Amino acid sequence: MRFYTICTPDGRKVPAVQGPEGSIYALQDFFASCTDMLDAVRTLGADPERLQELRNNLQSPVTFTSPFDPASVRILAPMQRTEGDIVCVGLNYRSHIDETAHVEDFTNKEATVYFAKRADSILGPGDRIPDYDFVDQLDYEVELGVILGRDVRGYDPDRDPNPVFGYTVFNDLSARNLQFLHKQWFIGKSLDGYTAMGPCIVTADEAGNIDDLRIACSVNEEIRQEASTRQMITRVPELIRELSKYMTLRAGTVIATGTPGGVALGMEHPRYLKSGDRVVCEIEGIGKLENLVG
Amino acid sequence: MRFYTICTPDGRKVPAVQGPEGSIYALQDFFASCTDMLDAVRTLGADPERLQELRNNLQSPVTFTSPFDPASVRILAPMQRTEGDIVCVGLNYRSHIDETAHVEDFTNKEATVYFAKRADSILGPGDRIPDYDFVDQLDYEVELGVILGRDVRGYDPDRDPNPVFGYTVFNDLSARNLQFLHKQWFIGKSLDGYTAMGPCIVTADEAGNIDDLRIACSVNEEIRQEASTRQMITRVPELIRELSKYMTLRAGTVIATGTPGGVALGMEHPRYLKSGDRVVCEIEGIGKLENLVG
Repeated sequence: MRFYTICTPDGRKVPAVQGPEGSIYALQDFFASCTDMLDAVRTLGADPERLQELRNNLQSPVTFTSPFDPASVRILAPMQRTEGDIVCVGLNYRSHIDETAHVEDFTNKEATVYFAKRADSILGPGDRIPDYDFVDQLDYEVELGVILGRDVRGYDPDRDPNPVFGYTVFNDLSARNLQFLHKQWFIGKSLDGYTAMGPCIVTADEAGNIDDLRIACSVNEEIRQEASTRQMITRVPELIRELSKYMTLRAGTVIATGTPGGVALGMEHPRYLKSGDRVVCEIEGIGKLENLVG
Repeated sequence: MRFYTICTPDGRKVPAVQGPEGSIYALQDFFASCTDMLDAVRTLGADPERLQELRNNLQSPVTFTSPFDPASVRILAPMQRTEGDIVCVGLNYRSHIDETAHVEDFTNKEATVYFAKRADSILGPGDRIPDYDFVDQLDYEVELGVILGRDVRGYDPDRDPNPVFGYTVFNDLSARNLQFLHKQWFIGKSLDGYTAMGPCIVTADEAGNIDDLRIACSVNEEIRQEASTRQMITRVPELIRELSKYMTLRAGTVIATGTPGGVALGMEHPRYLKSGDRVVCEIEGIGKLENLVG
């Protein structure tokens, strides 16, 4: 299934799901308590039977539901808020390690790099990326976003059911000047509007082989990043295993799994984003996420 | 006023406030909607009149309220959950910069260092600090904790009312082996039970001169850290100004403002915490926070 957050013709932000014929249904038509996507992920992620019930309902929508005309709604970021800050993985593709070694050398890193990113004012498809006057090195990073559906502690991939609710396209926008000025990366990653997600959350059962999806980012039609998720150094189950060894990951936590090579920072003459640039992040089987700068 | 979260004799966790005579009142006796401290901070922080109403009520408690006998309740961490991850300030006392320069040299840092710390299972007074078998360098860091009472964006200390709801004693427990193995500090700081807070939140109007409070940490009665908050390099209003230049800080956000010298990491022969150690963090005018390891 594909979950969206939409702005309805009368201006409400509601979590929604797409039926097989393409129509969009408000989740509250099925589960009254789902007031936003974080609620929905917590409700449905912890209860496979309810998720199956929803899937069945969508096959033959019950008579009291009325779909939205997709043309009449605006698609927003699928999650407007997340559980805690976003958990990000750094340097998780060899090509990105190689291209940034001149800034900080992670060539021989012995462990996965994790950091947090605060995500206020999350951008959805078509939303404008803020063009702050104090940022002169604005960079893109396309990443596979993972949304956890239940609380996880001590996850064992060989034994435990998959805790992933679904996947999304994630753009980890970064102010490189602030990221390095402040030493730890938190600030340069956490500016309002520096997280873009979308267009939807595809449930884990329908996302295909997430260990081999094409992942790409273009700026003004020029492909800057292009790779496969099979090139991830630490893959999704291992990321969850390691993180949940140390901390309880709550339902609704978003993990951004790292970006492949091709970012501006990695260029000999970095071409950072500037006002008017059109950034398109794309992951096979999930969709496209397009944003304009400024 | 002093706000506590308590465990009542019948096992409920409730936000509470101390009356001038020392008694503890459940906040729900005054404001029914305050189910936990994060709710209370959001409700009261945004509305100085309600805070004043509470203060007046405590002067002559209305007849329908019945205080708890302080001896009958257990004091928990004042906040059981926070807005987002904890925002932490690194290297904010010269003595801590100097003592850790052999690990990573921040002597000439040009900007304040910020990072995030996930805080699941927050410890209160008397709670046990987990003794994980994969942590062999467990360190203490006493810090002044700041709790924001309202949403802040673009804060100007010279013009805007103080957005701080109150202050608490904060212990930023750190697994040094993981903090440096994973390069970014997030993981080594974010283990379950690695945030201790308490014993209470003292409201901003009653915390005294927060730019000159004694701050100290002892291990087994031996004073390891002892300083004044006047030694902070970047002080609280400037921290909020800078952070809120970049991101919206929501009510209920906790900022840990950095630790003075004296941590184990800074010693020539580091004496990290071990099972059975008694750690007491203390800030003048706020109180003591005592925890045992293991």
